[in-house]
Amino acid sequence: MDDDWNRLDYSAANCSVARTLQIVGEKWSLLLLREAFFGLRRFADFERALGCARNLLSERLATLVEHGLLERVPYREPGQRERQEYVLTEAGLELLPAVMALLQWGDRHLADLARPPVVVRHLGCGAPVAVHLGCAAGHEHLAATDVAAFPGPGALRAA
Amino acid sequence: MDDDWNRLDYSAANCSVARTLQIVGEKWSLLLLREAFFGLRRFADFERALGCARNLLSERLATLVEHGLLERVPYREPGQRERQEYVLTEAGLELLPAVMALLQWGDRHLADLARPPVVVRHLGCGAPVAVHLGCAAGHEHLAATDVAAFPGPGALRAA
Repeated sequence: MDDDWNRLDYSAANCSVARTLQIVGEKWSLLLLREAFFGLRRFADFERALGCARNLLSERLATLVEHGLLERVPYREPGQRERQEYVLTEAGLELLPAVMALLQWGDRHLADLARPPVVVRHLGCGAPVAVHLGCAAGHEHLAATDVAAFPGPGALRAA
Repeated sequence: MDDDWNRLDYSAANCSVARTLQIVGEKWSLLLLREAFFGLRRFADFERALGCARNLLSERLATLVEHGLLERVPYREPGQRERQEYVLTEAGLELLPAVMALLQWGDRHLADLARPPVVVRHLGCGAPVAVHLGCAAGHEHLAATDVAAFPGPGALRAA
């Protein structure tokens, strides 16, 4: 590892954080994914839970479908026309750690009297679940100060 | 655990994800935190790395300082006036899992030929670091389908 690399020698143009935020980097998109993780699937339910304008909601749902995070699945209530539900794809489910990391930070720093409104549990044993950092050699629960970023195989030199 | 709770019976008004996004839920804020994790501290360096308008940058830095994620630390280059650096606080460092989760998702789904531009390593052993879900009973590397959200002690019933 070259400890002395200088961030400014590298381009941020191909940054994976920025690319992800181009898809979900808007408040309603992440809140919509939160509701999908909490089990909602229907337009009217998302609208009710989020209190978001219908046109915004419909735009954000379309973006998440377009990028493969949600898929449309038809359903029909008795006596109604066919409608679409929005179901998390595998790629969508893989964003759960990002939503949970935001949840966890808010629970710790911003929740009313530190009483979290939502608890995520391991279905296998019922214990609360948290996001943490672990390395490929098996060291778990690393602190931010235990880790550092280095240029990877796809790093581009700055112009 | 009450498996049959209905999300719509509860209010989203005190959601910790939404509260966190009120502070960092804007593309430049998360990218700015990314750069701070990558080691940048100075206004001119953030500006160069992000290519963001100066007024936006200065507004986002002020918000992150106001909410205790960054703190201003004075420095002075020889022959120059005193300036301020922006250094991550403990609360700011605790957002690393959120930034890393976005990075990881982008590396997996959006990186050029799956060659990540940045690799985060454990300083203790050099192995690459990832974000994952683990439960308080010690079950690690849980999938999104192994976990579910339930109303917590601070849950509010919907009006």
